[in-house]
Amino acid sequence: MRVDGRKANELRKVEMIPDFIKHAEGSVYICVGETKVICTASVEDRVPPFLRGSGKGWVTAEYAMLPRATQTRTIRESSKGKVGGRTMEIQRLIGRSLRSVISLDKLGERTVWLDCDVIQADGGTRTAAITGAYVAVVQALWGLVKGKSLSRLPVNDFLAATSVGIVDDVPCLDLCYEEDSKAQVDMNVVMTGSGQYVEVQGTGEESPFSSDELTRLLALAKEGTEQLVQQQRDLLGEAAGWIGGEGHGRNEKGNLAVE
Amino acid sequence: MRVDGRKANELRKVEMIPDFIKHAEGSVYICVGETKVICTASVEDRVPPFLRGSGKGWVTAEYAMLPRATQTRTIRESSKGKVGGRTMEIQRLIGRSLRSVISLDKLGERTVWLDCDVIQADGGTRTAAITGAYVAVVQALWGLVKGKSLSRLPVNDFLAATSVGIVDDVPCLDLCYEEDSKAQVDMNVVMTGSGQYVEVQGTGEESPFSSDELTRLLALAKEGTEQLVQQQRDLLGEAAGWIGGEGHGRNEKGNLAVE
Amino acid sequence: MRVDGRKANELRKVEMIPDFIKHAEGSVYICVGETKVICTASVEDRVPPFLRGSGKGWVTAEYAMLPRATQTRTIRESSKGKVGGRTMEIQRLIGRSLRSVISLDKLGERTVWLDCDVIQADGGTRTAAITGAYVAVVQALWGLVKGKSLSRLPVNDFLAATSVGIVDDVPCLDLCYEEDSKAQVDMNVVMTGSGQYVEVQGTGEESPFSSDELTRLLALAKEGTEQLVQQQRDLLGEAAGWIGGEGHGRNEKGNLAVE
Amino acid sequence: MRVDGRKANELRKVEMIPDFIKHAEGSVYICVGETKVICTASVEDRVPPFLRGSGKGWVTAEYAMLPRATQTRTIRESSKGKVGGRTMEIQRLIGRSLRSVISLDKLGERTVWLDCDVIQADGGTRTAAITGAYVAVVQALWGLVKGKSLSRLPVNDFLAATSVGIVDDVPCLDLCYEEDSKAQVDMNVVMTGSGQYVEVQGTGEESPFSSDELTRLLALAKEGTEQLVQQQRDLLGEAAGWIGGEGHGRNEKGNLAVE
Amino acid sequence: MRVDGRKANELRKVEMIPDFIKHAEGSVYICVGETKVICTASVEDRVPPFLRGSGKGWVTAEYAMLPRATQTRTIRESSKGKVGGRTMEIQRLIGRSLRSVISLDKLGERTVWLDCDVIQADGGTRTAAITGAYVAVVQALWGLVKGKSLSRLPVNDFLAATSVGIVDDVPCLDLCYEEDSKAQVDMNVVMTGSGQYVEVQGTGEESPFSSDELTRLLALAKEGTEQLVQQQRDLLGEAAGWIGGEGHGRNEKGNLAVE
Amino acid sequence: MRVDGRKANELRKVEMIPDFIKHAEGSVYICVGETKVICTASVEDRVPPFLRGSGKGWVTAEYAMLPRATQTRTIRESSKGKVGGRTMEIQRLIGRSLRSVISLDKLGERTVWLDCDVIQADGGTRTAAITGAYVAVVQALWGLVKGKSLSRLPVNDFLAATSVGIVDDVPCLDLCYEEDSKAQVDMNVVMTGSGQYVEVQGTGEESPFSSDELTRLLALAKEGTEQLVQQQRDLLGEAAGWIGGEGHGRNEKGNLAVE
Repeated sequence: MRVDGRKANELRKVEMIPDFIKHAEGSVYICVGETKVICTASVEDRVPPFLRGSGKGWVTAEYAMLPRATQTRTIRESSKGKVGGRTMEIQRLIGRSLRSVISLDKLGERTVWLDCDVIQADGGTRTAAITGAYVAVVQALWGLVKGKSLSRLPVNDFLAATSVGIVDDVPCLDLCYEEDSKAQVDMNVVMTGSGQYVEVQGTGEESPFSSDELTRLLALAKEGTEQLVQQQRDLLGEAAGWIGGEGHGRNEKGNLAVE
Repeated sequence: MRVDGRKANELRKVEMIPDFIKHAEGSVYICVGETKVICTASVEDRVPPFLRGSGKGWVTAEYAMLPRATQTRTIRESSKGKVGGRTMEIQRLIGRSLRSVISLDKLGERTVWLDCDVIQADGGTRTAAITGAYVAVVQALWGLVKGKSLSRLPVNDFLAATSVGIVDDVPCLDLCYEEDSKAQVDMNVVMTGSGQYVEVQGTGEESPFSSDELTRLLALAKEGTEQLVQQQRDLLGEAAGWIGGEGHGRNEKGNLAVE
Repeated sequence: MRVDGRKANELRKVEMIPDFIKHAEGSVYICVGETKVICTASVEDRVPPFLRGSGKGWVTAEYAMLPRATQTRTIRESSKGKVGGRTMEIQRLIGRSLRSVISLDKLGERTVWLDCDVIQADGGTRTAAITGAYVAVVQALWGLVKGKSLSRLPVNDFLAATSVGIVDDVPCLDLCYEEDSKAQVDMNVVMTGSGQYVEVQGTGEESPFSSDELTRLLALAKEGTEQLVQQQRDLLGEAAGWIGGEGHGRNEKGNLAVE
Repeated sequence: MRVDGRKANELRKVEMIPDFIKHAEGSVYICVGETKVICTASVEDRVPPFLRGSGKGWVTAEYAMLPRATQTRTIRESSKGKVGGRTMEIQRLIGRSLRSVISLDKLGERTVWLDCDVIQADGGTRTAAITGAYVAVVQALWGLVKGKSLSRLPVNDFLAATSVGIVDDVPCLDLCYEEDSKAQVDMNVVMTGSGQYVEVQGTGEESPFSSDELTRLLALAKEGTEQLVQQQRDLLGEAAGWIGGEGHGRNEKGNLAVE
Repeated sequence: MRVDGRKANELRKVEMIPDFIKHAEGSVYICVGETKVICTASVEDRVPPFLRGSGKGWVTAEYAMLPRATQTRTIRESSKGKVGGRTMEIQRLIGRSLRSVISLDKLGERTVWLDCDVIQADGGTRTAAITGAYVAVVQALWGLVKGKSLSRLPVNDFLAATSVGIVDDVPCLDLCYEEDSKAQVDMNVVMTGSGQYVEVQGTGEESPFSSDELTRLLALAKEGTEQLVQQQRDLLGEAAGWIGGEGHGRNEKGNLAVE
Repeated sequence: MRVDGRKANELRKVEMIPDFIKHAEGSVYICVGETKVICTASVEDRVPPFLRGSGKGWVTAEYAMLPRATQTRTIRESSKGKVGGRTMEIQRLIGRSLRSVISLDKLGERTVWLDCDVIQADGGTRTAAITGAYVAVVQALWGLVKGKSLSRLPVNDFLAATSVGIVDDVPCLDLCYEEDSKAQVDMNVVMTGSGQYVEVQGTGEESPFSSDELTRLLALAKEGTEQLVQQQRDLLGEAAGWIGGEGHGRNEKGNLAVE
């Protein structure tokens, strides 16, 4: 029995409120238990210098926490004048993960900025951010399809993330902060809707782990991400049908249709 | 008739959700029309160097906007590595305003950090931040009173803020972004519950203004802040009764009572 | 009777030495009592990105204090690696104020940089800077007119600034440092030659103020700025005649004349 | 057959020159193929604030590349004024990895700084840095034991790291730069001498990977780290015998001995 | 004949106005031709960490130019967020030079900050700064003697600086900007009143120079600094008599006297 | 007799290993006694803005020390977020020195970056860096000649540097750290192969020096740099024959030849 009464393989309650920010092309307010993140997707009609003229697009992410998202107040990175290592690591992870399921060469010379701002933190903020940012970016791209700026949805697969870890010698799914802070092993796993790994980041700073433990943790992560993908699918509605679809696009009448 | 159908002296709809962030000692989610700000008050048991050993406390504020709070995405100040002039000006205004109604010498050697993070911006973010931060700080201090860390609530008066301005030659209350961006004169007014001015900041960059116009704008601001103070009073419940009360505190039994 | 023997409505002695810096297009060394500021206006033949191709010009200001302008040495902002909030607030105020009386669309694609460097501080540095910078910018623009780069002087009105405040319950004009540091209310007012307000910034951090007090302070500010404008007019000589003049410019012979 | 003629499960030639920098308490010049890194361990008799008074020590790492370690010159991070995300990610990884095998509570209130400076880069710089830093830190700590500042060597196990990846659909060990830049999957693995995982960081940005591929990559990493640990053991000589040894230390005569 | 009509071995007109800034313990406004520098000396009753508890004092310098000291406007270092290499080099030179004639161990645990701010630049700003800063620091220390905080003036010798260079193949003393910008060789020399070298910094970036040329330049520098020292001596009045005086100090009555 | 047994006019053992870094166009690992510096020359096909379109090239230098190059660990400048004054001073010196012997107008619109990274410091790092960087830049330029990108070697003379100083009242050549840290006078001298001065930087912070002492120190520096130039000549082989050669270049067959 875990601190919040969950079973070892049980996710916290996940809620995603779409269209949370009126200005953004895509936005989701995702709550995973008490972890709450606002994810927005902003489309900009230009790309970084290394892609100019390439015809390809770019997807990048930024992550931050409100000062009082944490149990004690954290100093703002803007006040410190620099972005910390943890933040950089997380935003690089989010960007890399999302790019893995988006066809940058079908995006046109556009950049999608994914901003993930943690309003309240209770463990698993980076995985909640990835899961929410996925929905925001699909919404933003679906808007481009509906607005006829794109003929197909350049998204190859679903994508969700969760944390797993070994707490009191028990492999557990979706650690809350209290569990995370005493975990012997801590792992973040990003998986596609078809069950492939995009990122596996396991660390045993407190205690190295065996091959068997790794296998068990990966199985839990798979269970968790499958459920998250299902929730994304339900939320995305019509757009969900066009994900990964080689056979989809606009027909000769200019309407969206399965070919 | 204004762009959103309001009368010249009409506030937008104001909503304040208290206890929005579980970790903070005080917190409010304030929505003034489409302007939405999370205000948290964090109590820290130490003061800046210039107050150490003085027995006095401090109240300070920080203000920021999420990148996509605005119509087009704004670059994060943490990414730029410095806090901009507009942000500094606003957070100095918030801090100064709140300090004007709090008895720093009755606060003990504590700092209250007021974090005002704009989730969605539609004009008047700084005045919404002041109005919301007031509620958050009273909540936090009321918690200290209830926890017997303070014997009295060191708050002298209510405090609320609104913007006024001249739009298409008409003095108006509580400008939304569309009005603000074309205003000839723009003024932010911070007032106490007893109708005194704490801050008056009027600027006629586009068009200097006369003494009569100034008088008319200040009257509108008074109307607006009175309504905001009424909403704060309703929300604060029991704590509201102790604001400004020289004759309040703990009686000899240690209970809170009007002496 | 005030600390330096002045009456409540009396300005300190004001002196302005023009052409103080030989390299600058316009420059003034302004002394308001013991407050001493070097103001230079530098004309640059390009504008910030947001104005390129617009045919419009720009006016911007920077403000700084020498380390020992103050009673105890202040650390340089260059050594700290960032410009502080107070400095930013002041330079934004100076820039906004000056832009209010200059026709940016008649300036051509030029930027005028106003640098206000406080050599010695004794209260009222920002208002001295505005009053002096006005003279420097008119000189610089008058040079463009004389050099036939501009056909008219794109200056709509005079502009001067002063501080007022309530000291020991008495509303006073032009506070020196000793008064300023104990003032209950402190207000900076920027006015045009025709008596309109450009900026009104009043703060009652120590003590909120009433509507009547505000009225009294604004009246004092009017008295003060009128005298400052008169000194500017005397100093500017021939150029003064062309300020605000719709009917002025070069005649068909290319000479400057009143049409 | 790989670009440099190696078999899929073959490491590049590894050379470690100890005592490379005369000032440092421990230092190694490690060459893994054409990747060359100077690793130094510096012992400082104080700890970061969060450990003061705890009796515990700390191990931290910094990583950098000389500007011309890379094929084209890279701008120095000191010139840019900030440490980049990739650097931060790597130095956090190195620090975390080394801490996993050192008993911080037996180190005393000391900090060991591990500086890993890449002189020449050809893929696998972070794993070479970990493998080399391990030798440097053991040398530095062994010096403390020999100097009687520590009674036991507070090192629990050997530690080495290597990269693995899928190149042209073939899982390979120890990728050089040319392989790394076209790898579909890229993984860094840090393992202990007893074959436990300390860090597993796999990324399939270009192409998500299956569970089977993950298994194959982990097996290759195990082969590689075992060989690296053997080289470390040979190099460390006498000190190697004391690693992980609960039954070791100074006997009653004050001499080092197996109890 | 030089551009401004001087002979090769002729200094520009030098003027030094003492007590220029009322707040500073010592201050001089030095004009060397059109080069104008405000030098202030600020005494602080503490020393940098490396001297705490040593009983010794410290002298340090900062140098800056107002943006429009130069022919075209220079961006402020505070706006750029960093102090440039030229500035650092100059302020290190000023500090080192002044420390060479001050007995830090007789100064007590005090720091003297020398701020040299160039108001107008026309070549030779660093040498004017040294010559002026010397007067400011002697004034500040003389104030400590007169206020009985020090029993002797801890100044060992006079100190002045000038530039020399080879212009159109002619060795010249005290280059103005126009000469400096086309000089083949440029040298700054700091000398004591007794004719010893404190700093010799010669550079032949445009054209290496011979031993004979070096000798000729050093002779010119000697001529120049001797005249500058004479002006300093005249300006310092009574204090000048105590410079370098081992046999000076307070007598048993506590009065300043030559023993 | 000096601390390391050398005579007053004796250099430390100097070793230069060319082609030390495989990626760089030129590179040398120079050891002067225990001072060890990696110097690389990187050729970039563009120039800084002030030279664009001029047909001229540029040579610039950067200098850094590994954290543990020094006796106790030095904090990285990248971690501090700024380059210190000493570093700036040194890299400006290196750049200026090298530019003095290279014909920038015969270099084409190219920049040569000279990176001098101190691996181990024992006094004289800046002079070792200059001596080594000279070899690296000649190698890089010789590569351009051999690759027919340049028709002549745009190098006018040899260039080497050494330090001299007065230690225990004895003028000495090539100070090691122990000598340097107690020297009364410290001087760095950069000379050409033909015995001209490029830079003379002498400082008597601890003790001003006489004209005779200066003469003696310059004579020692000449002895030292002559030996260093001889070693450079030997190392550069064929390229050495083309240095300073007005009569060299490609003949009509396109082969390199003495005309």
